[in-house]
Amino acid sequence: MSAIPSHKSSSSSSSSSSSSSSSSTIKSSLIEPDGGALVDRVVPESERAAKALKAESLPKVGLTQIDLEWVHVISEGWASPLKGFMREDEYLQSLHFNCIRMKDGTIVNMSLPIVLAIDDEAKERIGASQDVGLVGPTGDLVGILRSIEIYKHNKEERVARTWGTTAPGLPYVEEVITPAGNWLLGGDLEVLKPIKYNDGLDHYRLSPQQLREEFDKRQADAVFAFQLRNPVHNGHALLMNDTRRRLLEMGYKNPILLLHPLGGYTKADDVPLDVRMEQHSKVLEDGVLDPETTIVAIFPSPMHYAGPTEVQWHAKGRINAGANFYIVGRDPAGMGHPTEKRDLYDPDHGKKVLSMAPGLEKLNILPFRVAAYDTVGKKMAFFDPSRAKDFLFISGTKMRTYARSGENPPDGFMCPQGWNVLVRYYESLQAEDATQQSAVVSA
Amino acid sequence: MSAIPSHKSSSSSSSSSSSSSSSSTIKSSLIEPDGGALVDRVVPESERAAKALKAESLPKVGLTQIDLEWVHVISEGWASPLKGFMREDEYLQSLHFNCIRMKDGTIVNMSLPIVLAIDDEAKERIGASQDVGLVGPTGDLVGILRSIEIYKHNKEERVARTWGTTAPGLPYVEEVITPAGNWLLGGDLEVLKPIKYNDGLDHYRLSPQQLREEFDKRQADAVFAFQLRNPVHNGHALLMNDTRRRLLEMGYKNPILLLHPLGGYTKADDVPLDVRMEQHSKVLEDGVLDPETTIVAIFPSPMHYAGPTEVQWHAKGRINAGANFYIVGRDPAGMGHPTEKRDLYDPDHGKKVLSMAPGLEKLNILPFRVAAYDTVGKKMAFFDPSRAKDFLFISGTKMRTYARSGENPPDGFMCPQGWNVLVRYYESLQAEDATQQSAVVSA
Repeated sequence: MSAIPSHKSSSSSSSSSSSSSSSSTIKSSLIEPDGGALVDRVVPESERAAKALKAESLPKVGLTQIDLEWVHVISEGWASPLKGFMREDEYLQSLHFNCIRMKDGTIVNMSLPIVLAIDDEAKERIGASQDVGLVGPTGDLVGILRSIEIYKHNKEERVARTWGTTAPGLPYVEEVITPAGNWLLGGDLEVLKPIKYNDGLDHYRLSPQQLREEFDKRQADAVFAFQLRNPVHNGHALLMNDTRRRLLEMGYKNPILLLHPLGGYTKADDVPLDVRMEQHSKVLEDGVLDPETTIVAIFPSPMHYAGPTEVQWHAKGRINAGANFYIVGRDPAGMGHPTEKRDLYDPDHGKKVLSMAPGLEKLNILPFRVAAYDTVGKKMAFFDPSRAKDFLFISGTKMRTYARSGENPPDGFMCPQGWNVLVRYYESLQAEDATQQSAVVSA
Repeated sequence: MSAIPSHKSSSSSSSSSSSSSSSSTIKSSLIEPDGGALVDRVVPESERAAKALKAESLPKVGLTQIDLEWVHVISEGWASPLKGFMREDEYLQSLHFNCIRMKDGTIVNMSLPIVLAIDDEAKERIGASQDVGLVGPTGDLVGILRSIEIYKHNKEERVARTWGTTAPGLPYVEEVITPAGNWLLGGDLEVLKPIKYNDGLDHYRLSPQQLREEFDKRQADAVFAFQLRNPVHNGHALLMNDTRRRLLEMGYKNPILLLHPLGGYTKADDVPLDVRMEQHSKVLEDGVLDPETTIVAIFPSPMHYAGPTEVQWHAKGRINAGANFYIVGRDPAGMGHPTEKRDLYDPDHGKKVLSMAPGLEKLNILPFRVAAYDTVGKKMAFFDPSRAKDFLFISGTKMRTYARSGENPPDGFMCPQGWNVLVRYYESLQAEDATQQSAVVSA
C-alpha cells in the first residue's frame, strides 16, 4: 500500500500515531467499514515473490482493462466485506436484494454484481483447479483468485435486474457484458502489488485506508462525499458549499468535503478523467472550493449508468472510505433511455431508493435542491419555483455543446480557468477529428 | 435445518377463546405473521352500510378480475403487513430489494409488486380526491382505497426487475401489465365484504386466519405448505409424504400438510382451477395423501411465472397463513423462456434465492430431491443418479400430452381416479375445439 502523496498534506499535522502499517485495518471514528473491517487484498511485500511463483504455476485467466479496475476496487476494500469476485450466492443476493447477508446475520449493501466473466475456453483451461492466476491486459501477472467457483453468466437476467431494461445501447452492457464470456468466476482475490495506472494521476488514487488516515489527520468530525463524473460547475460548488454550511449549522466543527470523481470506465462522450482532474484542480485554484476543507481523490470504480441501483454502490464505496455523509442529487448515475426519448430512470428514484436501501442505514443521505442558472442574479443558484422563468437549466449535453462550439456559457456558470480546460479539450477533439477526416479523404 | 422450536405448541385443546371476530388478529404459536399481526381489511358488518354510502360518493376506479384477486389477497392478510395496494415507497423497495423495511426497522419480504394500475382517464377523474371507490368487473362496489398516492407505472422497468427479462410472451405481462394504464394507485384498502367467487369452490378459499384456526384445531405442531398449480402426481405425493416422515423423525408429533394450489390467474395452457381441485380431491379419496393430516385449500393469488422472485411471495403468503415449513422444488414458479429454447430461470436459483431472502429467515425451507418415474420399480421415486437411465422425467407438458392423446401414463405415475379427471378435462377441450371449428367452417 503506497503512502499518502506529499502534495496533499497541507493542513494541521495530527495523529502521528497512526503511521500506516499496510496490514492493519482502520476503523474510522466517523463510520465503520461494511463488515466492520476494511478489506485489504494486497499481498504483503514479504510474501510477494512466493505468491508470484505460485500464481505462475496456476491456470491463467486474462483480465480486460475493466476487470482490472474491479480488481483495484476489490483489493483496496471499496467493496468491503467482499474479498474477491462474487461467487453465485453473493451474485444472486446482489441481483435480487441489492444486499448481502453476512454470516453473523448483518446485512451489507451490494447493489452491483462485481463479477469476472470467462469464456468456455478459459473454463476448460481451469478444469478442476481450485485457484487461478490473473493476467492483466498487458500480460503481467496481477494476482490469484482462490477457492474459485464457476457458474452461469445469464447476461439477459443480469442486465434486466441491474438496469431495469434490456434495451440495446446501454454503454456498460454493450462494451463489457455482451462481449464477455458465458461463465462467471468467483473466488477470493490476492493482488501481488497495488494496482497503478502510470497515467500521471495515481497520486489522486487514494485507497479507502489512505482516505481514512487523511480524514483523521485533518481532524474531520464529518466527511461528506460528492460523487461525480462531469466537470464541476458553480451549481455543484454551490451545493457542496451549502452542504458544508448546513453541517456547520448542525454543530460539526470541521466538515471535510471528499470531491470524488469516478475514475474507471465511462462512456465515450463523457469528459475523460485527465481533463476532469485538471478542471477540478482549477476549481480549487480559483477558490470556488476551499482547498483547506476539500480532498480531491479518484474513486476507481467503472461506471454502469444504472441509476438507482448504481447510486447505492457509489454511496457504499464512500462508507468504506470513511465518509459519513453522502450528497445525492437529481437522477444520480442516470442517462437518457437508449432507445426512447426520455430519462432512463425517474429522476427522483435515485435518492428515494438510496434512502431506503438495506445496509446503508448508517450513512447520512443529503438530498440536495436543484441548482440552475439564475439569469437575474447572473449566477448558479438554488432553483426557486416562484420565479421559474428566471432559471436556465444547463445540462451536461448543453455544457458540452457550448464548449464544443467555443461559445461561452453564461457568466458565473463555471470558473474561467475550469471552463478553459474544457474548451481546450473540445478544441483538441475537433483537431483530431479534422486530422482523421483529412486522412480518410486522402486515403 | 433448524431444530424443533422451543415454543412449539403443546397438545392442549385448541384455544376456544379465539372465536373468530373478524377484527381480531391471530398470532400463531408456530410462526408469526409478517409485521406481527395478520392484516384484515374487511369492513366489520356493523359498518358496511355506512362505508358503502361513503364509497358511492367517491370517484370510482374499475378493477379487472385480476385486480380483484389482489384485493382478495390484500384484504385477508396474505400480504401482511401490506394494508393496500403499494404506494411508491413500498413499490420501489419491492422492486429493488424484494423486501420492505417497517417503521420499527424490521424487514419483511415483499418480492412482487402488488399494485393497481389506472389510466389517464381514471387519474383525471380522481383529481385531488384523497380516497376512491373500487368497482369490481361486474359493476358492484367492492371497497375503498384511502389516502391514495398516484405515481408513474414504468412497465418496462417493472417487468425487467420482476422477471429478469423483457422478452415478449410472458403471460402475466401480456395479459395484465401491457394492457394496463400508465399510473399506479396506492393506498389503504377497505373491502366492503369478503371476496367470493360463487364458483362452487369458495369453501376451499380459507383465509390465513381460518387456516391458523384450523391448524390450532388439529393441534398441529408443524405445518408444511406445498404450493402447486398443476395436478398432483405420485412424485408430488412421494415428497409430501417423505416430508412428513422427516418432520416426524425430527421429533414433531403432528405435522399437518397444507396442500395449497394457487387459485388466481394462471396461463391459458395450465389446467384450470376447478379441474385441479377435483383432481386433488380424488388424490385424497384414493388415499395417496392422508386426509387426517392434510388440509386442501386455495391460495387466492394470481400467478406471475416469475421464478426466484415469485417463489418468495409464495413462501411469504404461507407464513401469514401459519405454515412454518415450506417445500421448494426444482424451478419453482418457472416456465420456458418465451423466445429462447431454454428454461427462463436456472432451475436451482429458486431455492437458492428463497433460502437467502431477507425477511424469510423465520421460515424453514425444505428443498426436496427430484422425483421421477422409476421404470424398474414402476413407481415415482427419488431420482438415483447411479442408475439414471432407469428414470423417466415426465414434465407437465408431457403429462398434458398423455392426457390429451388419451394415452395412459406409466403405471404408478398418478392415482387412477385423479388421472381420469384430467382425461375427461382434455376430452371436453377437444370436443369444444371441434364444435368451434365446425362453427367456423359453417360460418
